[in-house]
Amino acid sequence: MNRAAYHYSFDHEHLLSIEGLSPLDITHILDLADRYAEATRAGIRPDPVLKGKVVVNLFFENSTRTMSSFEIAARRLGADVISMPVAASSVKKGETLIDTAMTLNAMKPDALIVRHSASGGPKLLSRKVDCAVINAGDGTHQHPTQGLLDTLTIRRTKGRIEGLKVVICGDIAHSRVARSTTQALHLMGAEVHLCAPRTLLPSGTETWGAASATTDFDKALKGADIVMMLRLQLERMDGAFLPSRREYFSYFGLTKDRLALAKPDATVMHPGPMNRGIEIESAIADGEQSVITEQVEMGVAVREAVLHLLAGGPA
Amino acid sequence: MNRAAYHYSFDHEHLLSIEGLSPLDITHILDLADRYAEATRAGIRPDPVLKGKVVVNLFFENSTRTMSSFEIAARRLGADVISMPVAASSVKKGETLIDTAMTLNAMKPDALIVRHSASGGPKLLSRKVDCAVINAGDGTHQHPTQGLLDTLTIRRTKGRIEGLKVVICGDIAHSRVARSTTQALHLMGAEVHLCAPRTLLPSGTETWGAASATTDFDKALKGADIVMMLRLQLERMDGAFLPSRREYFSYFGLTKDRLALAKPDATVMHPGPMNRGIEIESAIADGEQSVITEQVEMGVAVREAVLHLLAGGPA
Amino acid sequence: MNRAAYHYSFDHEHLLSIEGLSPLDITHILDLADRYAEATRAGIRPDPVLKGKVVVNLFFENSTRTMSSFEIAARRLGADVISMPVAASSVKKGETLIDTAMTLNAMKPDALIVRHSASGGPKLLSRKVDCAVINAGDGTHQHPTQGLLDTLTIRRTKGRIEGLKVVICGDIAHSRVARSTTQALHLMGAEVHLCAPRTLLPSGTETWGAASATTDFDKALKGADIVMMLRLQLERMDGAFLPSRREYFSYFGLTKDRLALAKPDATVMHPGPMNRGIEIESAIADGEQSVITEQVEMGVAVREAVLHLLAGGPA
Repeated sequence: MNRAAYHYSFDHEHLLSIEGLSPLDITHILDLADRYAEATRAGIRPDPVLKGKVVVNLFFENSTRTMSSFEIAARRLGADVISMPVAASSVKKGETLIDTAMTLNAMKPDALIVRHSASGGPKLLSRKVDCAVINAGDGTHQHPTQGLLDTLTIRRTKGRIEGLKVVICGDIAHSRVARSTTQALHLMGAEVHLCAPRTLLPSGTETWGAASATTDFDKALKGADIVMMLRLQLERMDGAFLPSRREYFSYFGLTKDRLALAKPDATVMHPGPMNRGIEIESAIADGEQSVITEQVEMGVAVREAVLHLLAGGPA
Repeated sequence: MNRAAYHYSFDHEHLLSIEGLSPLDITHILDLADRYAEATRAGIRPDPVLKGKVVVNLFFENSTRTMSSFEIAARRLGADVISMPVAASSVKKGETLIDTAMTLNAMKPDALIVRHSASGGPKLLSRKVDCAVINAGDGTHQHPTQGLLDTLTIRRTKGRIEGLKVVICGDIAHSRVARSTTQALHLMGAEVHLCAPRTLLPSGTETWGAASATTDFDKALKGADIVMMLRLQLERMDGAFLPSRREYFSYFGLTKDRLALAKPDATVMHPGPMNRGIEIESAIADGEQSVITEQVEMGVAVREAVLHLLAGGPA
Repeated sequence: MNRAAYHYSFDHEHLLSIEGLSPLDITHILDLADRYAEATRAGIRPDPVLKGKVVVNLFFENSTRTMSSFEIAARRLGADVISMPVAASSVKKGETLIDTAMTLNAMKPDALIVRHSASGGPKLLSRKVDCAVINAGDGTHQHPTQGLLDTLTIRRTKGRIEGLKVVICGDIAHSRVARSTTQALHLMGAEVHLCAPRTLLPSGTETWGAASATTDFDKALKGADIVMMLRLQLERMDGAFLPSRREYFSYFGLTKDRLALAKPDATVMHPGPMNRGIEIESAIADGEQSVITEQVEMGVAVREAVLHLLAGGPA
């Protein structure tokens, strides 16, 4: 990419949210991620732009897949990665998030990747430390690298974002993925429609940039270019105000018949891990329209790009 | 080793089982492992044949010692190693083995090292991913690197495998070690005798290549070159059809007196971790005839060789 | 440092205790740690003196912060680090400390960093293995790198150790930190006063080199250059012979008023993790006199120095 051509430079210290990123920022991250994805596919080791840097994975909630994705991305760029199972240790001893952050900061890492159950935790932490902070998911708030990897996957599949009709269906109320991805896609010009059972559909989604929010999945699907299913938190189901798993599948599960309501070349996505047979039919998850594994692949590429831009100098 | 001399090349994508390996394959692995073992003893860092490669430890069952052995081996060869505590994370979320594998595969690792409680798990997984899969133990089925390290340890101790009398004693029924090691030693020309209480002695061991299967340990020991004791799963003992620990030790425990029934220069082995005083007397475990710690050492060397052959190009 | 000038060489195989170190040894470690600390602050990657070395973190007790500190230190020097969550694995299988050590030893690591709940565990282990052993905390006995990092932090803050009045307050009876730090500071010429509730004040502290041991914190504080608060094990409190948390704070908590009893430029320390509002007021912990985060920073530097001296050749 000829950066001189548009005099752009990425000018953020942290990645805490999709909010605050411009379309140009997102384009810049995706372009760099694209190059990293191609390098990996070609078996080319990228320049070790993080050589000598220490990246710390600080996960207050367990997530093997997200933590591994960041770890692989950071190591591909030559960083030393320390993955800290925080849940199991200092939290038990009653240490606060801030004391943990201050402790880590004193060890002089170059980037902190933080997942925390409290919305706003990574932001609070970013004010106390000297290094780059990347939000790897905070409460029901944000998961910005997920929003970026979804956007990249769509851009690679469809060749563009602008003007696409995207339907996101599932537990919108508790999903940081829904919020981050809606914001990122809206910023890049897509039309995003949200769909969920009434009790899982929050108000105010227009502030994320959603074009509509509905309980009628079949109607929402008409003409969709992208159908993104969210993971159902099974522990939330079967309660007083929620449908049973079977009812859920019958109204909101993505089946072959239902997918036929979208465009013939519609693309199916899911952030994983999937509940097969609950929010998505197994044949669809593994079918030709699915790019679910490409999402995982783009996850590593996007994280390489973000780590590069925040801790590895200009790209 | 002058490979040109016999026009041999290692021609396997995965290491899932001892079955399928030829005596030449095994010789090739052991020769390479021998060179790695000598390099480590001499304090020589081997060529980083896995530099830039990503090796993932995917252990659905905990095993610190096996996971560490693979991790040390992979790092000695320059790989980046990601060790995933799968038990504690995505499994809880209800993700299937296959989805976990597909997710990892999308991150484009170069080798997956898999331990799983289901016999056949790693094989199933190997069909779904693009990289080399190494079985690090599946159910009661196979643990091929254990079979190879046992064979290497014996070859180094006795100078050969062919014609040796090997006695393996313990919980044969539930032991993937017994099966893998019996197959490997039989392939290389040893005569392997299995010994266990009746309830722990399965039928069909002749299909592994065992020369005999008996409940009479004293008789089996006569003329043995190698006595290999297996770990007793204590949680299986003291049940209705099983002897007490004390009875077990009196009939199947390796004591000084009992060891005297074998050849005077017989070698004592154990895959670890040991139950001292149950299947083996402490003085024997630490005695001059024991090569138990050399087994651990050869474990790293064999894993270096296997990783090299599967993910590091020709050796 | 011109080593030739005083013909000194560091002549220890292991670091098990502050006992056995000479003032010259300590000076040598601190001088080297100082250089490492400055390199980190300047963003300079140090020489990879541990390149090709394998360092194993063997923690029988969980401690994210100490384990991370050693891991960051070892990686900064180029080592491969394997962190083993021993608590969760082989210990459950009933393997002894010694068998675990022998197993690891057979994998030929270059250094073992050991934390164990039994006083003397690391020493026992050091007799069985061929590599350097560093005690990262054993029972109520020793935590030598903590003693060294406290000493370094004080030397950097005050410019010297000799002649300083240091007060250490808290659960002296169960604190390996109190013992190690008292010994190190005494060796370097400080005057160390210990303070605790009667039930947490052991006899015999004069053998550590303590100048006094008292239950009167206010009196002890008079003229203090350094006030070091220890973490209170909350699970020990509220028992029959112990004060409540509230009483504890009123007699032994470090408040602004109480700190005024010490010298105006007194320095406040705490090994972490802190119980804010129990042993230390939050405003003091974060105040200008506190060097608590510098202690963490010096922890990494001291561990780099110790690893360098024990496993990386002459410094």
